[in-house]
Amino acid sequence: MKKSKTTILEIADQAGVSPATVSRVLNHRSLVKADTISKVEEAMRTLGYSSGSGNTSGIDNVPVIILNIPDTNTIFYHEIVRGAKQAAKTHDCHIIINEANLRSDDAEPLCKLAKRIQAFGLVMVNSVSESFLSHLSSVCPVVQCCEHNDNTRFSYVSIDDYSAAKLAADHLISCGCKKIAFLNGPSSYKYSRERYRGFLDSMNAAGLPVVDRWVCPVPDVSYDLALASAQRLLDDQDRPDAFVTVSDILAMAVINAASHYHLTVPDDIMVTGFDNIAISKMMNPTITTVSQPRYQMGYTAIELLCDTVAHPGSNPRCINMNTELIVRASTSKN
Amino acid sequence: MKKSKTTILEIADQAGVSPATVSRVLNHRSLVKADTISKVEEAMRTLGYSSGSGNTSGIDNVPVIILNIPDTNTIFYHEIVRGAKQAAKTHDCHIIINEANLRSDDAEPLCKLAKRIQAFGLVMVNSVSESFLSHLSSVCPVVQCCEHNDNTRFSYVSIDDYSAAKLAADHLISCGCKKIAFLNGPSSYKYSRERYRGFLDSMNAAGLPVVDRWVCPVPDVSYDLALASAQRLLDDQDRPDAFVTVSDILAMAVINAASHYHLTVPDDIMVTGFDNIAISKMMNPTITTVSQPRYQMGYTAIELLCDTVAHPGSNPRCINMNTELIVRASTSKN
Repeated sequence: MKKSKTTILEIADQAGVSPATVSRVLNHRSLVKADTISKVEEAMRTLGYSSGSGNTSGIDNVPVIILNIPDTNTIFYHEIVRGAKQAAKTHDCHIIINEANLRSDDAEPLCKLAKRIQAFGLVMVNSVSESFLSHLSSVCPVVQCCEHNDNTRFSYVSIDDYSAAKLAADHLISCGCKKIAFLNGPSSYKYSRERYRGFLDSMNAAGLPVVDRWVCPVPDVSYDLALASAQRLLDDQDRPDAFVTVSDILAMAVINAASHYHLTVPDDIMVTGFDNIAISKMMNPTITTVSQPRYQMGYTAIELLCDTVAHPGSNPRCINMNTELIVRASTSKN
Repeated sequence: MKKSKTTILEIADQAGVSPATVSRVLNHRSLVKADTISKVEEAMRTLGYSSGSGNTSGIDNVPVIILNIPDTNTIFYHEIVRGAKQAAKTHDCHIIINEANLRSDDAEPLCKLAKRIQAFGLVMVNSVSESFLSHLSSVCPVVQCCEHNDNTRFSYVSIDDYSAAKLAADHLISCGCKKIAFLNGPSSYKYSRERYRGFLDSMNAAGLPVVDRWVCPVPDVSYDLALASAQRLLDDQDRPDAFVTVSDILAMAVINAASHYHLTVPDDIMVTGFDNIAISKMMNPTITTVSQPRYQMGYTAIELLCDTVAHPGSNPRCINMNTELIVRASTSKN
């Protein structure tokens, strides 16, 4: 019987450590404690595997990180991928993208994939439960990026959604808008709940009424459904004079809905977007938007992951990056 | 020493077949010849692996397909991913996305990844050399999707770029345009060369001159650079009255460049896009575009891959799907 190749999993089994630790010993030796290195090297000797260049063909030693994103169709994630790849490059890691909109509590398929790939780590751009994350972390280190669950022991990098939405609403109020609608995401998302809270507080602080029927959760942050919602709100004598929206795509829908009723943005209706995706400055009018540092968040997620690998057991890191308001034509009269 | 788990690679080694064949025996038994099944089963017995449910924990038997795309930032690829995932679902496969803009002839990194994942197959949304594809196919079956190399023995699904560009140019000519510019992709891409040929033939057939300085290859199909090119062309008394472009993103740049010079689309300048991405109908004016069946191409690529796995050694399939012109406001006066 032909001798099969020695895998990281076998070495990890033998040494009683995680595959990620073996990966680390092979690739980031300086990050590993001396006694762990000894244990792994002992296991390699037992299995007839030497880390010298003479035998590297038996194992593929490039650490592979899985970046799980809910939806490759959503432009929002692109810059996150770009930032993550940039950081991975500096750490000599490779990134593969897994698309899964994880709604259930079944972490098994992702665990299987991570095991099969002998993943160095996992970045979750999804909010999942503590038990889901724990299950994953039994296979490899896990960090969260953007949408996250902050009641867990897992590090994350995200933004302060409350303050970000407040920024947009305060701006519209400072422009003189008084009847402000809110096109939100589905309330199952943490970001939606936080941004709604920011919107509410901003309106309350200004003494402006929040009209129930003008607060619309848009399923899947869909352009088509946002267009329908915005038309319904504008098809009324008593209509909003401004929209806070949680995505530039939704703001585009508001602009086109307004045009359908021969209303002009920003003269008749003002609107703010969110995310500062490339298209927000290609629209006519260009869109005032809350910019998230998506590139930096992707980058930081990988940095956090490498930190987690280097210092297992250290306290989780919770980083909220700054957002900023970019004022463009959709809220600037003349 | 603890007995390690039996892997598909080990079984494939033992049976003298490819890992994909083992995968097929485990998952798509009906597609495999009887004597091949016997060989693989013999190897499994030798290695102490039984395909019965009692022992499946030793091997992860979900076939994983790698979809290699040049750039996750390009909206064009999203529908391809969606179509591929749809087909994968019907074949009980899982898709992971690898982003690599493969310019060199070094297939080794991708081969390593495919080996490590024990990939069921690879879909390349890149044009690479015959030797690159051959190298990959020594690990698992390979098919091409969209941008492809048609001088190879590997199946592909794509479109007829020549006819597609002719469709756009003929339409502008039928609208009365006589001074037509062409914003193309880099000439290193087959699609750019083919579309240019279609544009040329359309202009020649109509007896219209092709002005050299109005034919612009735009690096990376970049909005910003297309905006610069379009402004340069429009900043002239002798300017084009229409633009054929090879992407809706480039058409958006033309619309915004025109607006900068107080020229109106479609009254002063007409423009056609390409791809029918969602944003083409969100712009004001909406963009006339050549629609590629991206969803179906992604779907068909996976179907071709499964065919290739089921019938190794059969002739390559070359499928060119139909494109269609969607006429919108950017070419419709009143």
